[in-house]
Amino acid sequence: MDFQVPNTLAEQIANYLAERIMTGQIRPGERIHEAPLAVELKVSRASVKEALYTLERWHLVEIIPRKGAAATQLNAKFAAELYDVYMHLLVMLATRLCERWQEADLDRLLNSVSQVTEQIRQPQADISAVVEASFNVMETCCAVVDNPFLTEALSNFKPAVSRAYYLGADRYRQGLAQTSTFFAELPKAVMARDTTKSQRLIHDFAEHQKQLIQQALG
Amino acid sequence: MDFQVPNTLAEQIANYLAERIMTGQIRPGERIHEAPLAVELKVSRASVKEALYTLERWHLVEIIPRKGAAATQLNAKFAAELYDVYMHLLVMLATRLCERWQEADLDRLLNSVSQVTEQIRQPQADISAVVEASFNVMETCCAVVDNPFLTEALSNFKPAVSRAYYLGADRYRQGLAQTSTFFAELPKAVMARDTTKSQRLIHDFAEHQKQLIQQALG
Repeated sequence: MDFQVPNTLAEQIANYLAERIMTGQIRPGERIHEAPLAVELKVSRASVKEALYTLERWHLVEIIPRKGAAATQLNAKFAAELYDVYMHLLVMLATRLCERWQEADLDRLLNSVSQVTEQIRQPQADISAVVEASFNVMETCCAVVDNPFLTEALSNFKPAVSRAYYLGADRYRQGLAQTSTFFAELPKAVMARDTTKSQRLIHDFAEHQKQLIQQALG
Repeated sequence: MDFQVPNTLAEQIANYLAERIMTGQIRPGERIHEAPLAVELKVSRASVKEALYTLERWHLVEIIPRKGAAATQLNAKFAAELYDVYMHLLVMLATRLCERWQEADLDRLLNSVSQVTEQIRQPQADISAVVEASFNVMETCCAVVDNPFLTEALSNFKPAVSRAYYLGADRYRQGLAQTSTFFAELPKAVMARDTTKSQRLIHDFAEHQKQLIQQALG
């Protein structure tokens, strides 16, 4: 049986603020003031400060010493640069996955992929469920590749990438057919240990996603 | 004229602890206790906590909620995985540099490179000066490429990579000829906007460095 360690107070505050930034309730560039927030949430300023450091690691908040914290900007240029690094890390993930997967990993890998396909197949596909299932594939791949630095970097990008998806949800919906094709093609390339093809599939898919998001923000 | 903003107290504590972790005075895996450290340094626990979050972002400290902080492990496997992500980010940096540099950037780029070559040419080359000059090249390239997420990821890797160099300094010294060749070849490839060659040069150099470090830690 798996026991989930309950989140610390700071983690709960970070998740609460992340949700508000991702959904646009806290707007890009908006200042986040520690003291009123601590009063509003009935927590200590130290806990708020700790949460803000987590949000900085997630690329959702910028902390300027002696100035304070603000939600990071999110315009077309920023989103493109964010996506560019994210894509390069995903290409690395796919490369190492092609080299490292073993028979015993196949079940959970394919299972995580089929959950994305299932979500897309729903008549009124729920975008956030599709995005969540896609991240779940990424996390399963990270567990197989087992590079703690790569896992950390990718999981730190997840909230900011989610935020970009959320803002571009309508356009993302139009691209679901491509998402579906991508998740059908990638497992074949990985199972054939075809590094070049896996890299190209990720590159092309990410470029397409990047354009959707840039159009949504442009 | 450039005014340097003085470091905050937390940054000063982070730098002090980073130095001790990088040079091995705080050993891999060693626990770091907030309270005695705050007393020793005559600072508040909040400042120590803030410094530990910075060190976590630098991959030098691992913080486990409700358990506390410890210096991260550094064995051959960890160093290889660290170097693998670092190399992929450097390949991305070189790729974008080939596309984005402009005439006005050449002076400062070539200047930063010649400082590395100068350090290597010294009769008793100072390894930490060579490493510092190499990082300076990376930072100059980051400024030209101007992707804030890439800059942040690379600068967060700098302390952990320095730590690996420090532990492998003697072997690094044996590889200085290769370092010198690398810094002679790379600018030519970048100036020719030859992405493929730049990527290959970085890949081969980083693989060589990775092996030196692995041997030193193995």
